[in-house]
Amino acid sequence: MVGTRIASGRLAPRERLPASRQLAAGLGISRGTVVTAYEQLAAEGYIESRPGSGFYVGDIATDGLALSADSSAHGGSEPIVDPVSAPLTHPGYPDSRLFPARRWARSLARSARLEPQTMLAGQSRFGDLRLRAAIARYLADWRGLEVDPGRILITAGSVDALEICLRTLTTAGDKVALENPCYQPLRHIAENLGMTIDWLPIENGATSLPASRQPPNLVILTPSHQFPLGGAMPIQRRLEFLQWAQARNAWIVEDDYDSEFRYAGRPIPALASLDNADRTIYIGTFSKVFSVSLRLGYLIMPPPQVGDFEATLARFGVKAALPCQPALAGFIDDGDFYRHVRRVRRIYGERRRLLIDLLQQRLSDFLEFEDHQAGMQITTRLAAGFDDREISSACRAEGAIFPPLSEYYGDSSGNQGLLLGFCPYTEDEIRTHIAVLERVLSRSC
Amino acid sequence: MVGTRIASGRLAPRERLPASRQLAAGLGISRGTVVTAYEQLAAEGYIESRPGSGFYVGDIATDGLALSADSSAHGGSEPIVDPVSAPLTHPGYPDSRLFPARRWARSLARSARLEPQTMLAGQSRFGDLRLRAAIARYLADWRGLEVDPGRILITAGSVDALEICLRTLTTAGDKVALENPCYQPLRHIAENLGMTIDWLPIENGATSLPASRQPPNLVILTPSHQFPLGGAMPIQRRLEFLQWAQARNAWIVEDDYDSEFRYAGRPIPALASLDNADRTIYIGTFSKVFSVSLRLGYLIMPPPQVGDFEATLARFGVKAALPCQPALAGFIDDGDFYRHVRRVRRIYGERRRLLIDLLQQRLSDFLEFEDHQAGMQITTRLAAGFDDREISSACRAEGAIFPPLSEYYGDSSGNQGLLLGFCPYTEDEIRTHIAVLERVLSRSC
Repeated sequence: MVGTRIASGRLAPRERLPASRQLAAGLGISRGTVVTAYEQLAAEGYIESRPGSGFYVGDIATDGLALSADSSAHGGSEPIVDPVSAPLTHPGYPDSRLFPARRWARSLARSARLEPQTMLAGQSRFGDLRLRAAIARYLADWRGLEVDPGRILITAGSVDALEICLRTLTTAGDKVALENPCYQPLRHIAENLGMTIDWLPIENGATSLPASRQPPNLVILTPSHQFPLGGAMPIQRRLEFLQWAQARNAWIVEDDYDSEFRYAGRPIPALASLDNADRTIYIGTFSKVFSVSLRLGYLIMPPPQVGDFEATLARFGVKAALPCQPALAGFIDDGDFYRHVRRVRRIYGERRRLLIDLLQQRLSDFLEFEDHQAGMQITTRLAAGFDDREISSACRAEGAIFPPLSEYYGDSSGNQGLLLGFCPYTEDEIRTHIAVLERVLSRSC
Repeated sequence: MVGTRIASGRLAPRERLPASRQLAAGLGISRGTVVTAYEQLAAEGYIESRPGSGFYVGDIATDGLALSADSSAHGGSEPIVDPVSAPLTHPGYPDSRLFPARRWARSLARSARLEPQTMLAGQSRFGDLRLRAAIARYLADWRGLEVDPGRILITAGSVDALEICLRTLTTAGDKVALENPCYQPLRHIAENLGMTIDWLPIENGATSLPASRQPPNLVILTPSHQFPLGGAMPIQRRLEFLQWAQARNAWIVEDDYDSEFRYAGRPIPALASLDNADRTIYIGTFSKVFSVSLRLGYLIMPPPQVGDFEATLARFGVKAALPCQPALAGFIDDGDFYRHVRRVRRIYGERRRLLIDLLQQRLSDFLEFEDHQAGMQITTRLAAGFDDREISSACRAEGAIFPPLSEYYGDSSGNQGLLLGFCPYTEDEIRTHIAVLERVLSRSC
């Protein structure tokens, strides 16, 4: 290729190229082909056209440059293996084997066939209108939240929702309060956006209020089911947080990540359902019920801030994909979604029961836990003397994944413990994993 | 509801609730129902259980708190209308009416039916393996890039790709160089992540190299087709940028957003295809060819950084949705994607020809432009005396959307001009829009 010969110095700078007619005759090709080739080289800047005189090699210096002699520099090397150290089935994930994949495929195919334009061209940056209406009905039925679909913004999952909140409601240098422990990507996002972090300890099962000196501009809470410790925030503390936010014009982001999974009683009403002063932004996700890979979640905007959220999406771009949104709306409207939630809740409940029985029968000397009758994992505390990271990696080496509790803390105050997921595993798998844990704990004593 | 009566103060703190047996008899319901209700209230923290003594109202203070008396506070108010000021069909978007929606629907339905698990459970944080392989073949055929699929990371579009790059390769306070003018969300993202911006002026159609004092850690370039001015970066400047990056261990992010659309000659090879020192990260997107709403793009990781990119995804979470990825792979592998690109390129070429003819025939007194025979819009410069924001908003009031060029600059050095899109409009629509522009310019003289 002429371009490569020029870049590699095999054609000299300022050298005149043969006239197109002459080169065409020499190569036995049409003159048009040569002209096209010369024009392409000129467009890429390899050669210059001087009207009336012809084409000349450009003055191209490549001193000291590591340059691909051809473009397959990496093509011939060893294939690169994805460095996925952990399997993508995290213990806190749902069991994708239980998902009604055929019904979902039907819903997706139907929406692709009937409304192809809806899948491709959005009406609003906030997402598909029908999905937003379906979510509004779902929230009214399950979470005690009556919201207009116009307040619902579809996101690419919870982390995207949190980023959108921080970009809309805070500026760099603002202080954000997080529960200690918490889901660590929240911390990474907040730090990455230049926020200072205030850690709120969990005392007697309730997140502490921020200290009054230099209060944060925004707190992120998991009031229905503290992550990862478990347990619902008592109503008294919920009211204190609302009073706190109202008095200071601060924001509460309510991350309601797994409220579908309560195994006794009814779902705990959302904190946002108590707030009449528009200080709460509610975040929900389909990752826990449906599939992490769908990457769809939502947030509820306080009515006065709807325009500000729109401006954020215009400024930074939308990340939530549209094509599955109408299908998900159909899946909810047809009742498939509710049937699926009821079914997996029953199965997860059985798996949870088995896990608790095994823990009580075989591991009570090594660890303790509270049964909050909710969620997708049981958080245990290890007896004194155990190092949770060591135990965790010894178990991982034998194929059982138990994330260490101390890694969820923002500081070194963390308790030593393990998170024991039960949703993505069959009863046999749970038995195997607990046998591994028993073996590892016994020999670490 | 007892909870509401407690929160609103109608049940006194510390009041003992009736025994479950007694309340059940009084209400004519089963005792089990009452026990369940009491346990639910205890889980939510409204009441306390004292073993052997019964249930008591919690000590709940609500002084000075704006509280929803019921949860439908916003339910009865006026519906909220989405504040979408601009139609979502931006002049730089593709024409979704030309999209082969039926073939895409078939591909989606087939992948949903045949491999439902693949859509739900990912094998890698980098995305679906088959799509990554299809992209690798596409890049080899169209962009002169031979890359192992293991180096391809699927993103939720270009902005997500840029965020992932910045989070992997820079830290807060680092300096990022942007072309002036550029796609402004890049600037918003970089500023939002705490970067300092260095503006690189475009001189004689080529982006200037960064000044040697305090050089940036990363530059973001559009070498194949400068956005929004148009034109390819000459080979000499490409080599200078590679030399610059290699000498300083700096990074080049090549944003190759619309290289499919060249109306003469072949696609310009990617800058990354010249780089043999792994300093270039190539970003591509399906937004321009396929649909903005798909929200899928990709980046090519330099081999030594593959592990760092994986760590970023683990730390901050993945935003690219999985369900459409196998379908898109099928769409590419079956040739539907290529057929679509060829078809829209022909149609966009005709629309572009019409737009250029109209500009030359009717607007040459008001504006000038260069024909780069590429891209999805023509960037024009207004004659002296016009204010591009005023002209733009006057046109918008009459239904024609021409973004003002000066808004794409990072400072006030911006040229006065208009971006004239031609892809999403029919020939009739183009005629109507240009008539609007002619009217507005004539009366603004």
